[in-house]
Amino acid sequence: MLVARSNPIELEKDRTQEVCFSSDGSILSAPVESFLQAVRSQLREQVLAFEPEIASFAEYALLNQGKQLRPTLVGCAGEADQGFEPGLVKVAVIIEMIHLATLVHDDIMDQAILRRNRPTLCEHSGNEVSVLLGDCLFSRALELASEFPTTDVCRLVSQATRNVCSGEILQTLRYKKRILNQEDYLRTIRLKTAELFALSCELGGSQIGLSSRHCDALRNFGFSLGTAYQIYDDCLDIFGDESEVGKSLGTDLQTGKCTLPILLLQEAMAPQEKETLLSKLFVWDESQRDWLMGLFARHQTLEACIRVIEQHLYDAERALELLKGDGHGLSLEPLLKFLSSQATRLGH
Amino acid sequence: MLVARSNPIELEKDRTQEVCFSSDGSILSAPVESFLQAVRSQLREQVLAFEPEIASFAEYALLNQGKQLRPTLVGCAGEADQGFEPGLVKVAVIIEMIHLATLVHDDIMDQAILRRNRPTLCEHSGNEVSVLLGDCLFSRALELASEFPTTDVCRLVSQATRNVCSGEILQTLRYKKRILNQEDYLRTIRLKTAELFALSCELGGSQIGLSSRHCDALRNFGFSLGTAYQIYDDCLDIFGDESEVGKSLGTDLQTGKCTLPILLLQEAMAPQEKETLLSKLFVWDESQRDWLMGLFARHQTLEACIRVIEQHLYDAERALELLKGDGHGLSLEPLLKFLSSQATRLGH
Repeated sequence: MLVARSNPIELEKDRTQEVCFSSDGSILSAPVESFLQAVRSQLREQVLAFEPEIASFAEYALLNQGKQLRPTLVGCAGEADQGFEPGLVKVAVIIEMIHLATLVHDDIMDQAILRRNRPTLCEHSGNEVSVLLGDCLFSRALELASEFPTTDVCRLVSQATRNVCSGEILQTLRYKKRILNQEDYLRTIRLKTAELFALSCELGGSQIGLSSRHCDALRNFGFSLGTAYQIYDDCLDIFGDESEVGKSLGTDLQTGKCTLPILLLQEAMAPQEKETLLSKLFVWDESQRDWLMGLFARHQTLEACIRVIEQHLYDAERALELLKGDGHGLSLEPLLKFLSSQATRLGH
Repeated sequence: MLVARSNPIELEKDRTQEVCFSSDGSILSAPVESFLQAVRSQLREQVLAFEPEIASFAEYALLNQGKQLRPTLVGCAGEADQGFEPGLVKVAVIIEMIHLATLVHDDIMDQAILRRNRPTLCEHSGNEVSVLLGDCLFSRALELASEFPTTDVCRLVSQATRNVCSGEILQTLRYKKRILNQEDYLRTIRLKTAELFALSCELGGSQIGLSSRHCDALRNFGFSLGTAYQIYDDCLDIFGDESEVGKSLGTDLQTGKCTLPILLLQEAMAPQEKETLLSKLFVWDESQRDWLMGLFARHQTLEACIRVIEQHLYDAERALELLKGDGHGLSLEPLLKFLSSQATRLGH
């Protein structure tokens, strides 16, 4: 897992205070920790922007933060370890709100009951309130975006939001239509995950006045890192160890989502074998797990997936080289290395 | 009904071409008809902005337009009968897209099957696609808003969107908690309906460079007109004639929504009578309709509702006086008069 809860050594008792750790226990996000604290505090203040009756729902959605990956990217790209301006915090708040709004809507669609050890908003307050509260969060985020002097943040945030939601629609359609090609899978995860990672890095850089060349490199870095991260997360769902990861796994198989491991496996199989595989996958039953894991092992699917992750991380690294040469993006490097080491660990 | 479909005299065969008629059959929106055509054409073009797989859903949602009240308000406030710039059309497209997005989400919550004689998007494509497509429409509208030179349109549109969705949440909570006071009802309809009417008028005026005094007056006009319109629409649902109105009525009673007629009735009743009323309302059964209509007649509830509508129309008229004195808002007057005459007709 890229980021873990700060347990047992909690820095503060507030449960929204979560700190990034690497697997060896060192704090990964320490350089931008005071920035992340400012982001959490601003998110908490956002609750006051809503009508009194709605504030409690907004609070429920906004203050159950998890990994804070996107704010961390904003902070690292915006060199918040060297100090930061309110605009950088606001960018992180906007992007995290958009992300949390998409989670509220995702949970309705997945009929999810729990998220981060707590009932989801739809379980807690019903689908009606959840659909509308997600909409309120989206619009509030765009309202904040309109407080910047130019329309750039509005434009980029609304585009990225549309891309994230479009990616989610494509994922739903892929599942319904049983589309099984890699190109389509990649397009989906780029829209639903990589776009917001890219935006986090790009806006982090533009807020501190980096050149458009550097902002483009940051965007490319975020895009490749986000793609790698989503593939890693999809692999984790199949190959991860539940007790180690700390969340329930195997949900993609249960819901029939065909992620990269399945796509690579079926490509490697003979036509008849492939047919058996697909017929079993589309009526998934946990008793088939050992048989499926055997197939993955025989075809070395996990190793092939890790190679794909490494390719995207390599692209991210190349974008980072350009930045590092000019003294930028230095605190992004540990994130890259950490994801790479986690992906490699999956294979052992 | 304020606005009816152009049937049997259709100007064009395109089913999205709907024209505003007054009850005597004269075309009400003729002064801004070429503006409305431009709005419809731009909305159609918006379909191309979506991913290819999503375009058909976007088309389904965007091209089933109804009364086009909000674009009509933009056009009238923006004096489009004297010619119009692309910015005015864009404002109308943005507001109509926001409105259509809220309808997509409303239909999910109401589990509605039909809208304007066609299956709703959720019936047609499922709730998952509908939740996400609504989100895509919201973000696309904000993307368009960010194409203006300043952040004003973004700010106003995102605020209004949040207000509309907040109003819908309050409506849901009022229903669940059985809140029965007028103040709360008014606050809800102002947020869910009047805000977008107000914005349509305000942005129409600001796009043609009217002074902030005139834009404020336009905003006040739209706000009062929108409030009156929603109360009228709520009365229509209870007192209207289905064959004349052309849509199914009585849905508020069936779903337990307490609109103004119920609120005024229960205020006028003795405590014990009131208790009987409420207990029957909360397990509504169509066989109780005659009994309820008898109560309305005895307490002259419809007359009282019409007086409330007239009060709001009077406020709208006062705002309009200020504009008319300076030669603005002239084509808004027929809308006001028409709503007033329709409200009066309900009483006969």
